[in-house]
Amino acid sequence: MTQGKVYLIGAGPGDPELLTLKAVKALRLAKVVLIDDLVNRETLMHAPQARVIEVGKRGGCQSTPQSFINKLMISLAEQGQTVARLKGGDPFIFGRGGEEMMALREAGVPVEIISGITSSIGATAVLGIPLTHRGYTHGVTFVTGHTQDGSPIDWQALVASGTTLVIYMGMNHLVEIVQHLLSAGLPPTTFAAAIQHGTLDIQRQVMSPINMLPMAVKQENLGSPAVIVIGDVVKLTESEAFFNARAIAA
Amino acid sequence: MTQGKVYLIGAGPGDPELLTLKAVKALRLAKVVLIDDLVNRETLMHAPQARVIEVGKRGGCQSTPQSFINKLMISLAEQGQTVARLKGGDPFIFGRGGEEMMALREAGVPVEIISGITSSIGATAVLGIPLTHRGYTHGVTFVTGHTQDGSPIDWQALVASGTTLVIYMGMNHLVEIVQHLLSAGLPPTTFAAAIQHGTLDIQRQVMSPINMLPMAVKQENLGSPAVIVIGDVVKLTESEAFFNARAIAA
Repeated sequence: MTQGKVYLIGAGPGDPELLTLKAVKALRLAKVVLIDDLVNRETLMHAPQARVIEVGKRGGCQSTPQSFINKLMISLAEQGQTVARLKGGDPFIFGRGGEEMMALREAGVPVEIISGITSSIGATAVLGIPLTHRGYTHGVTFVTGHTQDGSPIDWQALVASGTTLVIYMGMNHLVEIVQHLLSAGLPPTTFAAAIQHGTLDIQRQVMSPINMLPMAVKQENLGSPAVIVIGDVVKLTESEAFFNARAIAA
Repeated sequence: MTQGKVYLIGAGPGDPELLTLKAVKALRLAKVVLIDDLVNRETLMHAPQARVIEVGKRGGCQSTPQSFINKLMISLAEQGQTVARLKGGDPFIFGRGGEEMMALREAGVPVEIISGITSSIGATAVLGIPLTHRGYTHGVTFVTGHTQDGSPIDWQALVASGTTLVIYMGMNHLVEIVQHLLSAGLPPTTFAAAIQHGTLDIQRQVMSPINMLPMAVKQENLGSPAVIVIGDVVKLTESEAFFNARAIAA
């Protein structure tokens, strides 16, 4: 029997046109697609021949345990199948792609990573917000706002780094995160944005000074999945929503 | 006369298959392509109809000044042309895309950003190095190793942040950067990699403890363009090159 293979594919932030040519090629090869909740179903148009298995994990509530997904991928590959594992964003930026890769490796299953546009890069591009910009910042940091092991995040160091901060999975802890950042010395007038459903037609965002962001998010009833972007690069947006948010925050 | 438009396109790290479908679509529409040095020429297959203008800036030496590129884009758009501005990686991650966007906006030229896979994400995926990984780090920071205004980078804060560090444009300053990091308290045995020509067939890398990285880079004669990745996630690679580098560093 031929050996199967798993492609761990980043489907990008949402817009199905942000899929890479390599991802499309792998989807065409796949006999089975394992797809996460947050992946746009339109991407499945590239795999009309494939069996599709939904293995979503929505927010905190895990509808399919990770260990089950790992076992399923291993079992399919051991049956000789070509498996496309479609994940939102990039597999290696908070995508648990590392864990899936390790499990496949340990089982001796060939695995290839196909990078995707991570959600915050796509979402901010739509708004014309460059995550790095000369004269504003030397870099950008992507952090999770939700550490599963409960270990603390050094917000002081993140603020001191002077990089644009992008927080994934932070919406449920926004108030505490903002408190941490302000306590760590972040100026309260630092520009910030929360962007939901980035790059989709239903993308929505609020932009405001960081100290007003929790209120603005609440007023606009913005929820997950969303990314939070903090740094003066946010003011480079041309989005009208920004000016609305400034009015809210005034 | 119809109004022109500029697409600021991220061509990704090098592998032409890492172009997005959206980028391909914009290239097909383009009458003119302005292409950087570091962009793979194979991407031009999607724009056979277009006039191609080389506007590369190689390393420190600027063969085409930024102001000239901006003026050229504005002038072409004002002539009603559809312009594809192809940049390596992602336009907003150290791509000067922000500056080009601002210049176009100020001139009243419509501009659309098409995100690309940033080079470090592509390069590390090939090696099976997840930039974030549960139990290893809460995040990842992308910083430039070469600040054009000479302003200092807070290496201490970057080390304290505990995020995986990815340094762009750092190869010419590698020795100083490593000194800064070690002075800032980074354990000398922290795993690190330097990856040149990421995702291309000619990709080469060295991996070693951070304190040995400058020597390993010199021994392997690795040069720019390259990304430097620092953090214990590097040890998750399966690459044989890693074990070779360990031997070098032993």
